[in-house]
Amino acid sequence: MLTKMAQEARSAAGVLALISEEKKNEMLAGIADQLAANTAAVIDANQEDVEEARLAEMPEHLIDRLILTEGRLESIIADLRHVIELPDPVGEEFDEYTPPNGLMVHKVRVPLGVIAVIYESRPNVTLDVAALALKSGNAVILRGGSETIRSNKALVKIIQTSLRMNGLPPESVQLIDSPDRKYVAELLKMHRYVDMLIPRGSAALHKYCRENSTIPVITGGIGICHLFVDQSADLEAAINVIHNAKVQRPSVCNALDTLLVHEAIAGEFLPPLARRLIGSGVELRVDTQAGKILEHQNEGRIQLAGPDDFDREWLSLVLGIKVVGGLQEAMRHISEHSTQHSDGILTNDKDHARQFVDAVDSAAVYVNASTRFTDGSQLGLGAEVAISTQRLHARGPLALKELTTYKWVIQGDYHIRE
Amino acid sequence: MLTKMAQEARSAAGVLALISEEKKNEMLAGIADQLAANTAAVIDANQEDVEEARLAEMPEHLIDRLILTEGRLESIIADLRHVIELPDPVGEEFDEYTPPNGLMVHKVRVPLGVIAVIYESRPNVTLDVAALALKSGNAVILRGGSETIRSNKALVKIIQTSLRMNGLPPESVQLIDSPDRKYVAELLKMHRYVDMLIPRGSAALHKYCRENSTIPVITGGIGICHLFVDQSADLEAAINVIHNAKVQRPSVCNALDTLLVHEAIAGEFLPPLARRLIGSGVELRVDTQAGKILEHQNEGRIQLAGPDDFDREWLSLVLGIKVVGGLQEAMRHISEHSTQHSDGILTNDKDHARQFVDAVDSAAVYVNASTRFTDGSQLGLGAEVAISTQRLHARGPLALKELTTYKWVIQGDYHIRE
Repeated sequence: MLTKMAQEARSAAGVLALISEEKKNEMLAGIADQLAANTAAVIDANQEDVEEARLAEMPEHLIDRLILTEGRLESIIADLRHVIELPDPVGEEFDEYTPPNGLMVHKVRVPLGVIAVIYESRPNVTLDVAALALKSGNAVILRGGSETIRSNKALVKIIQTSLRMNGLPPESVQLIDSPDRKYVAELLKMHRYVDMLIPRGSAALHKYCRENSTIPVITGGIGICHLFVDQSADLEAAINVIHNAKVQRPSVCNALDTLLVHEAIAGEFLPPLARRLIGSGVELRVDTQAGKILEHQNEGRIQLAGPDDFDREWLSLVLGIKVVGGLQEAMRHISEHSTQHSDGILTNDKDHARQFVDAVDSAAVYVNASTRFTDGSQLGLGAEVAISTQRLHARGPLALKELTTYKWVIQGDYHIRE
Repeated sequence: MLTKMAQEARSAAGVLALISEEKKNEMLAGIADQLAANTAAVIDANQEDVEEARLAEMPEHLIDRLILTEGRLESIIADLRHVIELPDPVGEEFDEYTPPNGLMVHKVRVPLGVIAVIYESRPNVTLDVAALALKSGNAVILRGGSETIRSNKALVKIIQTSLRMNGLPPESVQLIDSPDRKYVAELLKMHRYVDMLIPRGSAALHKYCRENSTIPVITGGIGICHLFVDQSADLEAAINVIHNAKVQRPSVCNALDTLLVHEAIAGEFLPPLARRLIGSGVELRVDTQAGKILEHQNEGRIQLAGPDDFDREWLSLVLGIKVVGGLQEAMRHISEHSTQHSDGILTNDKDHARQFVDAVDSAAVYVNASTRFTDGSQLGLGAEVAISTQRLHARGPLALKELTTYKWVIQGDYHIRE
């Protein structure tokens, strides 16, 4: 099954690579229209998924992630229409020059080809990925979670119908519609037809892909994110930023995991910070120094950090707090514990900000902002296929440009090499 | 052994990432000076490698690839001094913008980190890779062929001495100095410390790395390269280009493998082409149509092509020739048989050139030039670490810029996400 699917994706990619931006936008508008006209079918399918999840006693906050309502579908369709407005990166010519041999050289941006994405729960990912892949001229093979298989089937059916209506190969967007894991194992060996594999999910899924895929893999989405509150920070504003980074959506990869606080302001800063965070339901895991400062404030929400607590991505309302001697110790801690996703400094000292930005080598390095901005939509990229924490190809949010590569075009006058 | 080596490389990379272009250039000049002062030691070590290769009855043309002479060392040192003159890509700031949320966003180019390269025979690769890696701020782990192990040890010893003299960690350039293959297997699992793995060698080595590496792999260097001679080509000039692409250095990946000829000019073009090529010792593997045209010219150097002959990288003085109905058939043949390395058209028809450039998706697409130009040095990049034929990260010659990645720098005024 997978070989045929991959071959058809490859062949569809050949078609998509050559169509104009106008044609791609028409196709995406067609998908948006078809979705708008068929929300009932999608919501029916989604309700079956939700019912099954309830029967399986899935926790309610996870069920919430898979529910599609009229409102959520409208917002998905709005996102899709937003992708139409983004410029198509394909065809861009750049790096034009003439080496001493007189050849005319430039590069042209082209689609990657066939992309495979393995992901979990939220069915909006299906649309985000399909829209970005199609706009950048790529075919895509999707493997969503078994808990949303009916929703995804309904969505992909609408996409494929719409592709067909636009005279384009429906195999441009395909779904592996069986929950059987053997298809994932098979997919991972399709390097002959698939150019990039993106696992979006648990660390275990990433590890499995890294160890078993013969397709180049982009891993990401695991963020042990840090903020360092420097001596010179605006402390009131810092509390807001930390609260936002931890509380606004704790279950995602760019949420704050560990807070480092300069010892010179820890005594003044930590008590009001702890009050604010605990008031929003956050539990604190603190080092001994922070523990001493907060000892009279303990209402059962503060514990001493265990040995691995500064190497954990919490994905929940828990925050590690450590007092550090200053900028150098903060940067050393980050270099040892960060997953190079999103790390930042809160400071009014420009020199410290510069040192931090130079030395901390994470996909996104922040000065005076919440880590929650590492997000394709927040950064103006429309959406994202994933957030890369590896160094090859692209770091941070992967959107249209990151779904492309380039070719060299070399033109001569019957040039030969001496 | 490998874990310690990889950890030390990671730690050296942390130092290299932060030093200035000036400092890097001093270090490279130091290496060049040390090499110039120690050519005797390198040549002695190399002679031992050569003697052992002769004892092992290695064919003379392969032995030639591993010999280092005074002259070859001079040219290697000259290449190294050329890398000093190239601009350092690290620190470049680009893609600066402000999304609607008011954050100040830009990207900064940073080194990849630790690069591992597995390669064969030619000891000049040791210097090319080390120079490009160091100039772009990366540490490198080298695994050369067992046939040049003494030469490589001598070269790396000089590099390390010179690094130490410049106050930089000698572990910036390390050599796996055992021919035992178990170290390759071990290296391939070092994704915790190594950011990119480049195998340079046989298709079997690439396959082994793709299947066993948990480090992101850049494969390349396998080129089934095509030229299509269009009806409108300048035929005399075309013969020169084809002769150059096949004969100038047949053992390398950018040498011509298959020639496609427009049927309208095949009768006029093939006889003089065959004379010229056969005169330079080339054997032809032709389809039946070309065979008929050349039947009176056969001096034992022309054979009918076998079923797999248009899927072979010859790496020797053999050329496949096929007559095609025109541009479309030529592009279809290339899309089915090319390894997406280097493919070109010879034509005076601008529209055909444009169609070819748009549709043929190889790392390097040529118009009226020899495929032999797919080379870092020829394209003005100084040298190359490898030639990538995969689509992720970089295509074609990998030089300084391709050994870097970027980080996002996001600056706000205590911005929070709504």
